[in-house]
Amino acid sequence: MATTRPPADPEADPRVKAVFDDIRSTRRTDRINHLWLHLAFDPALLERTWAEVKAVMATPSTLDPLTKEMIYIAVSVANACSYCVHSHTAAAKAKGMTAAQHGELLAIVALAGKTNQLATALQVPLDEAFDAMR
Amino acid sequence: MATTRPPADPEADPRVKAVFDDIRSTRRTDRINHLWLHLAFDPALLERTWAEVKAVMATPSTLDPLTKEMIYIAVSVANACSYCVHSHTAAAKAKGMTAAQHGELLAIVALAGKTNQLATALQVPLDEAFDAMR
Amino acid sequence: MATTRPPADPEADPRVKAVFDDIRSTRRTDRINHLWLHLAFDPALLERTWAEVKAVMATPSTLDPLTKEMIYIAVSVANACSYCVHSHTAAAKAKGMTAAQHGELLAIVALAGKTNQLATALQVPLDEAFDAMR
Amino acid sequence: MATTRPPADPEADPRVKAVFDDIRSTRRTDRINHLWLHLAFDPALLERTWAEVKAVMATPSTLDPLTKEMIYIAVSVANACSYCVHSHTAAAKAKGMTAAQHGELLAIVALAGKTNQLATALQVPLDEAFDAMR
Amino acid sequence: MATTRPPADPEADPRVKAVFDDIRSTRRTDRINHLWLHLAFDPALLERTWAEVKAVMATPSTLDPLTKEMIYIAVSVANACSYCVHSHTAAAKAKGMTAAQHGELLAIVALAGKTNQLATALQVPLDEAFDAMR
Amino acid sequence: MATTRPPADPEADPRVKAVFDDIRSTRRTDRINHLWLHLAFDPALLERTWAEVKAVMATPSTLDPLTKEMIYIAVSVANACSYCVHSHTAAAKAKGMTAAQHGELLAIVALAGKTNQLATALQVPLDEAFDAMR
Repeated sequence: MATTRPPADPEADPRVKAVFDDIRSTRRTDRINHLWLHLAFDPALLERTWAEVKAVMATPSTLDPLTKEMIYIAVSVANACSYCVHSHTAAAKAKGMTAAQHGELLAIVALAGKTNQLATALQVPLDEAFDAMR
Repeated sequence: MATTRPPADPEADPRVKAVFDDIRSTRRTDRINHLWLHLAFDPALLERTWAEVKAVMATPSTLDPLTKEMIYIAVSVANACSYCVHSHTAAAKAKGMTAAQHGELLAIVALAGKTNQLATALQVPLDEAFDAMR
Repeated sequence: MATTRPPADPEADPRVKAVFDDIRSTRRTDRINHLWLHLAFDPALLERTWAEVKAVMATPSTLDPLTKEMIYIAVSVANACSYCVHSHTAAAKAKGMTAAQHGELLAIVALAGKTNQLATALQVPLDEAFDAMR
Repeated sequence: MATTRPPADPEADPRVKAVFDDIRSTRRTDRINHLWLHLAFDPALLERTWAEVKAVMATPSTLDPLTKEMIYIAVSVANACSYCVHSHTAAAKAKGMTAAQHGELLAIVALAGKTNQLATALQVPLDEAFDAMR
Repeated sequence: MATTRPPADPEADPRVKAVFDDIRSTRRTDRINHLWLHLAFDPALLERTWAEVKAVMATPSTLDPLTKEMIYIAVSVANACSYCVHSHTAAAKAKGMTAAQHGELLAIVALAGKTNQLATALQVPLDEAFDAMR
Repeated sequence: MATTRPPADPEADPRVKAVFDDIRSTRRTDRINHLWLHLAFDPALLERTWAEVKAVMATPSTLDPLTKEMIYIAVSVANACSYCVHSHTAAAKAKGMTAAQHGELLAIVALAGKTNQLATALQVPLDEAFDAMR
């Protein structure tokens, strides 16, 4: 099921084709994930979303590619996004995440989920030492 | 404000004192963050929470300490935990997070927040390729 | 799957039948969505929930029906409610939401998801100008 | 700060006065919590919200009043609602919640927060045994 | 689908077998839920998670077992964890939750979800009376 | 408090000055909200975020400006972002949102919060009629 139906021939639209070509080239694969197919109903939204994913996730930067995927997974878990958890876990494994690293990522995400609830339940006042504006 | 009042003299309880001593020793500081002070109303909960934080966050492992803090921040932002965002951002800076790394962390968290909403709004069906049980 | 089993013959209960009749009449359809079937295990909860949906969503007011559905979708996406995203996107389309409007709705929801994370990550202090109590 | 300014003399509106009188009488107190003062800008919303709170929380039922408050706190923590966590923790204490029960409530909320993240991160397939529709 | 593949013969690992044996013995059943099977890829995470579930949920304490399950369900709903909602609703029914109690639990969870949104939308300032640190 | 300290003289950086000038010109005001001041620590993130806000929120489109703000508020409430709820409620009022419209927006957000919890608690199976891929 889905809330939009992907176009029958999405690449008939040259804007969609340009994005899909760039995805295939950047990721060195022939596969276009379902997210992009479903976003193709709105070419402007597709273009902007891919441009941002490419700039943030597929451009060399101060964080290594696997660390980036693990941060992405962490947010997606907390936001309960099933699609994103699946797609970025697959991506992290493709970038070399070992079972030990996966287990450790889950241990941190689980612990953060736990202490987030504790700090919110206790409504703990902030420590002065945390304030970056001091 | 807070929903619990920390004990007037928390370390009068030897179980609390033992945890606080271990926090000071593990973190090489005299400061006990407010979260631990507020958890002291229930020594068993305090003990178990600190034991898990120590095992997951303060024990050498396959992920480096700064990566762990950034994953922790990512979850805490998505769960909207003000205390945790403040405390773990301060911890990440203490472990050497540069402004460039902080900016990049925020860019990933923001992008994930965005695509999480898109995938959920589209209710995109999962790609077979994501299935680890294949 | 589900956590409750709908009654075999829900309309045998006159309270359930009265609600279902009102749903059919208000919405001019013979179809009773699964949500109402599953709520029928508790007639009082069914009655109160439908009464509120009818009052808020199916009664002429200062906001037009399509705007209301788009606001409903926005909340449902942020709360990661798969059923609600599906049902209210279908309802919005039935009320005339165009592909362009759908795309724009998604762009706003995605942007808000992004800046929500940024403001929370930065723990930005409130501007005095935002205070309605001034 | 707040996004609405409560009316200067809210009880000048007889609909608001009727609700406030019922709150004072039901709760046996002279105090009107800020939530109700702020909702007074829209008397219809105030009336419907109080009616539901009264019916669900202040009417004898199959669950005892303290259990209800603890469930309310659990949801409010997970939804990160600072106001609701504060107000319902105060209410639970007023209804006799001991420190031991409070600690145990927090331990369950924290554990659920943790395993929620784990199950979502693993995207564990549902067990057939959980299906109420079998 | 899932993000991890459970080991073909998980109990070949003695640490996994010990946890599974304890689950079977504590719960008096032969069935091992999928969550534990999927956690078995990381025996240390499996051990720590089960130990906490056993200590918090399966040890006599100040709250009765059904109340605990209802609190667990409440958090899991608010965190939108499909697996946890299913598994803990099944557990609550196994512990005697009646349809009337289930309906009431849902009414509280729904009401809290509603007022959480209202208090957050209004950004209601906290009442002094809620402050446990007074 | 905050997790970053805004630069002492943010407009000394020409990239920051260009964004701030565009904000002042687009919004016809001299005021730069705190969010932008805090984002200025990372000029690239500031530039991309403002460009997207301008494209989505400040460019004429199929949805009117007030509807857009109300959708933004709805998402921000559900994500529990205090800063965003405050800033976009102020923006909606500046664009003409009446008290009646505000009350109705809150009624929809509250109702959606409620039914989101119900549908998630019931784990209601999707109706075939909702599937856009039929």
